[in-house]
Amino acid sequence: MTRLSLPEAHQLAGDILRHAGFSEAFVQAIATTVVAGERDGCTSHGLWRLLGIVATLRAGKVVADADPEVIDQAPSIVRVDARGGFSQLAFNVGLPLLAEKAKANGIAAMAINRCVHFSALWVEMEALTDLGLVAVACNPTQAYVAPTGGSRPLFGTNPLAFGWPRKGSQPFIFDFATSAVARGEIELHRRSGKALPDGWGVDRVGQPSNDATEVLDHGAMLTFGGHKGSALSAMIELIAGPLIGDLTSLESSVVDEGCKALPYHGELIIALDPQRFLGAAVDEHLERAEQLFTAIQGQGARLPSQRRYSARAKTLQEGVEIADSLYQDLLALRG
Amino acid sequence: MTRLSLPEAHQLAGDILRHAGFSEAFVQAIATTVVAGERDGCTSHGLWRLLGIVATLRAGKVVADADPEVIDQAPSIVRVDARGGFSQLAFNVGLPLLAEKAKANGIAAMAINRCVHFSALWVEMEALTDLGLVAVACNPTQAYVAPTGGSRPLFGTNPLAFGWPRKGSQPFIFDFATSAVARGEIELHRRSGKALPDGWGVDRVGQPSNDATEVLDHGAMLTFGGHKGSALSAMIELIAGPLIGDLTSLESSVVDEGCKALPYHGELIIALDPQRFLGAAVDEHLERAEQLFTAIQGQGARLPSQRRYSARAKTLQEGVEIADSLYQDLLALRG
Repeated sequence: MTRLSLPEAHQLAGDILRHAGFSEAFVQAIATTVVAGERDGCTSHGLWRLLGIVATLRAGKVVADADPEVIDQAPSIVRVDARGGFSQLAFNVGLPLLAEKAKANGIAAMAINRCVHFSALWVEMEALTDLGLVAVACNPTQAYVAPTGGSRPLFGTNPLAFGWPRKGSQPFIFDFATSAVARGEIELHRRSGKALPDGWGVDRVGQPSNDATEVLDHGAMLTFGGHKGSALSAMIELIAGPLIGDLTSLESSVVDEGCKALPYHGELIIALDPQRFLGAAVDEHLERAEQLFTAIQGQGARLPSQRRYSARAKTLQEGVEIADSLYQDLLALRG
Repeated sequence: MTRLSLPEAHQLAGDILRHAGFSEAFVQAIATTVVAGERDGCTSHGLWRLLGIVATLRAGKVVADADPEVIDQAPSIVRVDARGGFSQLAFNVGLPLLAEKAKANGIAAMAINRCVHFSALWVEMEALTDLGLVAVACNPTQAYVAPTGGSRPLFGTNPLAFGWPRKGSQPFIFDFATSAVARGEIELHRRSGKALPDGWGVDRVGQPSNDATEVLDHGAMLTFGGHKGSALSAMIELIAGPLIGDLTSLESSVVDEGCKALPYHGELIIALDPQRFLGAAVDEHLERAEQLFTAIQGQGARLPSQRRYSARAKTLQEGVEIADSLYQDLLALRG
């Protein structure tokens, strides 16, 4: 294993992205995101992602210096045209208007269009909870997942994220794939040659499979939670696809032309302002949310973000450890 | 079994509610909802619910003639104070302002406060899709469900519903409990003395149980989908509880004082207007949603509302059939 301090990890990520040809705005936005993933122990969305990011640029599937355009679509809708760049920069430039609209009107939506995406939506949720807002985000990906009762890839892994601000505590945040697991987890199993647990995917004829390559290349992943997870995944296809004038996962796969690049699609973010919902009573009611968190933890259950925050507390002190093979792959990309 | 035409079922429901002492506005709103449940084959939200509705009134846990107040809370927030009445009337009186705000601003929320609730959120989703709006709704219930990793009731069954309007077709709608099953299903198992399938609940010490009475009275239900379902259920507690200044499921249980009345709490509804998101391109993009539905059905999978619509097509012709014992119970309530 190779140990890197967080500033070293950021420097390495930045050097790789700069060498690959990304504009400085993207270098910073992407490096911040992948280092946040590694810092929080989310290896599938950490430094490893740089391999796919650079491959996506080399395949001509992302614009290295896109200048996202913010459009004031309606009193409670911001639209950001990412112009083919990675989503992070589009999110960052649209965030101030989204927050302004949510605080003025109580609820607002931001549609990010024509972006290339590599998830870690909890990073965006933290940016919104830092502003005191409650937030929900979701996006399609590419067609990897069969609907319940079906047999072929149609839905994406379609992450759904939620953030709730807490006074004096780290926010309550979850961010999960509506697939049984994130595609990155299956890719890590393939890299390490491990068999998949049951329930993660089906083979080319729709039968259960424990073979990562079979599931990724010929079969389909499954949703979590049976028909309910499948319904949620369909909802995400609709509200972060046609509703915002952007691609479904299947359409995104067609655009990919078999390159296996990071997916090109849209993203929907909804922000709600507790202050506008509650007025003068806001502190009293947010305190009742704290009682809910206390009750969850009081019976030995975990808050969804707890493991990430524990990893963060550790890596902020000790830095991150990555596999030597990954470190060598990254050094090779630094030029 | 006793067969009733839908008008007969509505008449019977109306007579029972009128005899119980509900104002005519509630008689019509509640009868419409329970008959819609029975019509669509959702027996757990059908005529059977009248028993609990009347019991709740007799227990003094609902206001029979409440006059809901609509409050223009913020440019994109409607609040309706149900004043202790059933939710249906509050929804109906708030709907026009919610739709107006969604169509003006692109997205809007309606918070229903201080209502008594017996679910069937898909009825509300249909009212919104009929207006061309996309909609999401959720609410806490009472503390029946343990968070993943916990052992005691904390979350409600917390339904989540979604509606998507379709031109020339019945809307795409789902409405599911974030518990492994609806509490009503477990109650029906108790009524009929059937063992529960695995995964529905735990006993008083947190171990798996197949005994409906043990799960309902001493143990806890489980969420669907493990920690992801548990996270969703927590989100619903937060956004349809403290965010709207209303009760969590645990707080609602305290208010109940052991009466096992229908739950008293709030509800959050979010409406999004495709026209404001998409402008002139709206038809083109909604057509792409139709392609998604075709692809789902093309691989043999079912749309979530399909079974309800099939039941509806049949009962509109043939009426509904209910168990004789239930029919006798209902006749006894008609006075």
